[in-house]
Amino acid sequence: MTGPARLPASARAILEGDRRALARAISEAEDDRPGAAAVARALYARTGKVPIVGITGPLGVGKSSLINLLVNRLRELDRTVGIIAVDPSSPYTGGSVLGDRIRFERSATDAGVFFRSMASRGEAGGVAAATREAARLMEAAGFDVILVETVGSGQVDVAIRNIATSSVVVLVPHLGDEVQTLKAGLFEIADVFCVNKADLPGADLARRDLRELVGLGARAGGWSAPVVATSTQPPSGIEELWNAVDAHEQFLDKTGQREVDERRRLSVEIVERVRGEVGRALSQRLEHDPELKGLLDRVVARSIDPRTAADRLARPVARGR
Amino acid sequence: MTGPARLPASARAILEGDRRALARAISEAEDDRPGAAAVARALYARTGKVPIVGITGPLGVGKSSLINLLVNRLRELDRTVGIIAVDPSSPYTGGSVLGDRIRFERSATDAGVFFRSMASRGEAGGVAAATREAARLMEAAGFDVILVETVGSGQVDVAIRNIATSSVVVLVPHLGDEVQTLKAGLFEIADVFCVNKADLPGADLARRDLRELVGLGARAGGWSAPVVATSTQPPSGIEELWNAVDAHEQFLDKTGQREVDERRRLSVEIVERVRGEVGRALSQRLEHDPELKGLLDRVVARSIDPRTAADRLARPVARGR
Repeated sequence: MTGPARLPASARAILEGDRRALARAISEAEDDRPGAAAVARALYARTGKVPIVGITGPLGVGKSSLINLLVNRLRELDRTVGIIAVDPSSPYTGGSVLGDRIRFERSATDAGVFFRSMASRGEAGGVAAATREAARLMEAAGFDVILVETVGSGQVDVAIRNIATSSVVVLVPHLGDEVQTLKAGLFEIADVFCVNKADLPGADLARRDLRELVGLGARAGGWSAPVVATSTQPPSGIEELWNAVDAHEQFLDKTGQREVDERRRLSVEIVERVRGEVGRALSQRLEHDPELKGLLDRVVARSIDPRTAADRLARPVARGR
Repeated sequence: MTGPARLPASARAILEGDRRALARAISEAEDDRPGAAAVARALYARTGKVPIVGITGPLGVGKSSLINLLVNRLRELDRTVGIIAVDPSSPYTGGSVLGDRIRFERSATDAGVFFRSMASRGEAGGVAAATREAARLMEAAGFDVILVETVGSGQVDVAIRNIATSSVVVLVPHLGDEVQTLKAGLFEIADVFCVNKADLPGADLARRDLRELVGLGARAGGWSAPVVATSTQPPSGIEELWNAVDAHEQFLDKTGQREVDERRRLSVEIVERVRGEVGRALSQRLEHDPELKGLLDRVVARSIDPRTAADRLARPVARGR
């Protein structure tokens, strides 16, 4: 491994704990600006060891409050925390679903906590790749745990599987019916279920339902997702929630499942990046490259159809170089 | 052009007005099943002539009611209508934002009206390409006008530009503030503004604001989006709304803007399809092709980073064959 002296200045600054350098590098990664690649490349070898914990669930289940309490708990355990809030702006609107997002209280005053929100900027798959890169930058900057909050619009974010090492699905008691319709989806995603607002009526029933659901099938490697009840006002169950996540992380190491999962996540990340690069390059070439302009001319003239044109252009990647 | 006798049987059935063949072909296009390509190819040369009218706007502005009334109006004018409702299921959830969607009343009883909803099935860009293909299939089946309803989650669907020949942005009076924040976006999208629920307080103000907004800038080719006031209970302004759309369609033909727009839309459609194909092919190859497995091995081992791997894989398409 190359020593810090061989690294680009910005990568060195991140390793040395410079928060502004970290923030800048994450912005560059998010916008896919030229500087991003060099920093990401330089730091990549130093990453992949910390838990990346996804927290997902419908709007209004209290994910942000829960994360604030988890952060406090992790700080009690002397662990530093990076937080990424993924803004699920629709690729169809380019806008934010959440509008003004709640900031995480502690990040303003505690150097052991770093908060960052990410937006998709109109390109769907791209947000997962950028989020993973942001998490790695935070890891390189020395954060011990990365929390990633994602909102499914009204539901659960399935893409969290492509980002997190452990995923917590947060529900509230009265979402019982939704749970039924989400069954299959939830199973694929949840490493830990969290029934928040456990003081509300129906909480016991919701937990029982979820436990039953979990009992119905086993996940890869034999993990069975625990169901934890939490409240945020007043706080309860937070320690149990973290312990459940921690148990899953230990399971990943013991069984070798961590590497299996990481391989899948990296494959998805690479594919996302290629899709983005190919899309950008092709848009350019269809406008400026004479051969491709000619192809587009023929599609416009209706002498060949868009599928045939696309097949021809996709072939080099589909079949290999 | 090849005569109907040379076409695949399913394409011939669509041309002959077989509704079940049409529905099946649209499903195949939506799922990108093998049969889709042959039908799309066979019918492509016969398409590209009818108006594809996008109707977009936030949830709750009354788009579906408006479309029901527009359909009635078009039927009075003796024009047949295909309707496509694009379900903006988030790529992060895979689920529907709308849940149970209102069906269009008339499609059940009037053979001159055909309704179809489309979902994205988790792949973002793909829905626009599939929707355009569905619109072409409807055109081939003989429908004179295609209406496409799309919902931006809480906002306006910018992707409608990649689908429709004319786009109607529907707003309601009390959305005045949102209009302010959407200014730039609205301009790019709207060929016609519709202030629905024009009986509500503030409607005149909303119309004036929009007219002012339209007055601030001119669109490509000099089109200035008219602002039409409508109500659905009781119906009013529907004739004016259709006339405004029709005027835009005539403008497209007179100025040559139709071909400019169609070229851009087809370019986007081709790029979307290539992205999809490349993504599917690469995911496969990263699992099964020894060379790419080796590349992924090195990424997993942290000896090269995902960006470098992606750059290498994207190169054949980015630089040409």
